[in-house]
Amino acid sequence: MILTHQQLTQFTKSVFLEKGMSDAHADIAAKGLVLADLRGIDSHGVARLPGYLRLIDAGRINVKPKFTFKERKKTLLQMDADSGIGLVSAHFAMQEAIERTHLYGSGWVSIFNSNHFGIAAYHAMLGFEHHYIGMAMTNASPLVVPANGTERMLGTNPICIAIPGKKEHFVLDMATSAAANGKLEIAQREGHDIPLGWAINAAGEPSSDPKILHKNGALLPLGSSPELGIHKGYGLGAWVDIFSGVLSGALFGPWVPPFVSFLEPKKGAEGKGIGHFIGCWDMAGFNDLEVSQRHLQQWMDTFKNSQSKDGASVLIPGMPEQFTHQERLTHGIPLNHEVFQELEKIGKALHINIP
Amino acid sequence: MILTHQQLTQFTKSVFLEKGMSDAHADIAAKGLVLADLRGIDSHGVARLPGYLRLIDAGRINVKPKFTFKERKKTLLQMDADSGIGLVSAHFAMQEAIERTHLYGSGWVSIFNSNHFGIAAYHAMLGFEHHYIGMAMTNASPLVVPANGTERMLGTNPICIAIPGKKEHFVLDMATSAAANGKLEIAQREGHDIPLGWAINAAGEPSSDPKILHKNGALLPLGSSPELGIHKGYGLGAWVDIFSGVLSGALFGPWVPPFVSFLEPKKGAEGKGIGHFIGCWDMAGFNDLEVSQRHLQQWMDTFKNSQSKDGASVLIPGMPEQFTHQERLTHGIPLNHEVFQELEKIGKALHINIP
Repeated sequence: MILTHQQLTQFTKSVFLEKGMSDAHADIAAKGLVLADLRGIDSHGVARLPGYLRLIDAGRINVKPKFTFKERKKTLLQMDADSGIGLVSAHFAMQEAIERTHLYGSGWVSIFNSNHFGIAAYHAMLGFEHHYIGMAMTNASPLVVPANGTERMLGTNPICIAIPGKKEHFVLDMATSAAANGKLEIAQREGHDIPLGWAINAAGEPSSDPKILHKNGALLPLGSSPELGIHKGYGLGAWVDIFSGVLSGALFGPWVPPFVSFLEPKKGAEGKGIGHFIGCWDMAGFNDLEVSQRHLQQWMDTFKNSQSKDGASVLIPGMPEQFTHQERLTHGIPLNHEVFQELEKIGKALHINIP
Repeated sequence: MILTHQQLTQFTKSVFLEKGMSDAHADIAAKGLVLADLRGIDSHGVARLPGYLRLIDAGRINVKPKFTFKERKKTLLQMDADSGIGLVSAHFAMQEAIERTHLYGSGWVSIFNSNHFGIAAYHAMLGFEHHYIGMAMTNASPLVVPANGTERMLGTNPICIAIPGKKEHFVLDMATSAAANGKLEIAQREGHDIPLGWAINAAGEPSSDPKILHKNGALLPLGSSPELGIHKGYGLGAWVDIFSGVLSGALFGPWVPPFVSFLEPKKGAEGKGIGHFIGCWDMAGFNDLEVSQRHLQQWMDTFKNSQSKDGASVLIPGMPEQFTHQERLTHGIPLNHEVFQELEKIGKALHINIP
């Protein structure tokens, strides 16, 4: 099934409206999910809609949150997201960060009491029209072991750094684990093994079983092994957890609430909800904007044209996603059969037609 | 040979003074090198002194730089380091960032026309007494290929995130390559192979030869292979290069000048010198400081006490270095025989005794 992004946005927005969100919130949430699909990050697009709805039905996502911002420093605000959906709360947070950046050249928001925020790039790119470089990160429910560890202590904790160019943008948006959960799901669906280095079994041994997370296994941090720098991926994931959770007042480490509604959050910690850290720097604060833009384009061109192996291309982070974005804007978004069926089921239950 | 940190600092400072640095600059540079030795990062300590001296003698490091800061935004300054040694210029930059953080809650400096800045943690930890979280990064001469690439385009481009705790600190200080150059040098000295995943040969094939960098080989980004996320390590190294070099007005990518004095910098780009990006956030801008400190300690204790494999410990980034620091403050700094001989040679040439 192929749907246009307008069709998919309209449907998704209608669903969120029906669940009780305001028009503004439903619009932001729907656009965030569809942006993921447009960029080819199918695991974070409308495929997640059923999951969000179950969390709404379970009362874990508040569809009418009252966001409160506390100015702690001129360029640092703390936000209570009131159990709202992260897709929306992180977006409002970034708007505040942009306001601060207008005034001071940079601005930051630490967010607690939130929920899953979709793709980090959705928020990090929000200041592009002002030539603002965005940074966005979030903690997530524990699936990843620390270096040397066998216990799930960290989420796949993504970091996004989004740097606006004149035509092309640099958008690094990466999980800090060797592979994100979605890649295991794909292997599972397609019935093949996963590479050693992605996951371990319950005994802490390397595993190639794509279902290992259902068998008390865990994901490995980027770096995968002591020789190849697992402590670095662990360190990055830990940075994200500390900024997003520990310092914001959210839950952190093993206490981060699971995305699935049927698992109860682990008790025993005093933070609230999932946490994010988000903000921006004005690119014009580094050097003359025109010079920086020219050098950035030169950097990109130099890398794209550098020597590669066996005819493969040297890519710029975010370029494949930008390409898919353009492609799907024109030709529509192909939906996996199961995902489409899920959407139909949701539509039927809520009396909303897929346009 | 074991020397106290005072002896080593006194000697190193005397050498820099003899080379023409001011007392203040020589002091900052010497302390930066000895801090690396104290923390056990021997590759970045006084072992590098001969290299710095050769760059001074070759006129590539200016021992009497005039630093100029340009306020581009209230929280973003651009610094011309006037070809000074990065150990000093990055330190002055961080002091400016700290001043801005006093005023606004965060502050940032993009630095061009600089040189090698030692360990990133030296600068990133400078605001700890004010409870400021430091970030420091630098580009470096090209040794690392991009994902899919076979050409040296990036340095080992380290990132440091330093978060002050009440007793213990979180200090992530990592090269964005799978392994730093120093690890290959150790393998070379000890005469054993390097693990596959660190480097490739000139044809782009995996290599276990510790001398491969002398044979037109190159280092691999963190992640090492397409399956294990090499694009992530590449993306991180690229972020560092863009922030440190492209946006600051420094050289970037393949044009970053080599640390060794006998190699001429590659011509053809308009930036100047090596670049850094450095700054801090006030931890009190995230949440009540006392709450954040308590949660951070709880986070550290939880991770340290989590399940591990085969009796290995789950470590907190920066803890082993803090431990070594304490140990070497008390028992002195053990110097490799070759390094000590190099220092003796320098001392003899400059008529400075090793105390």
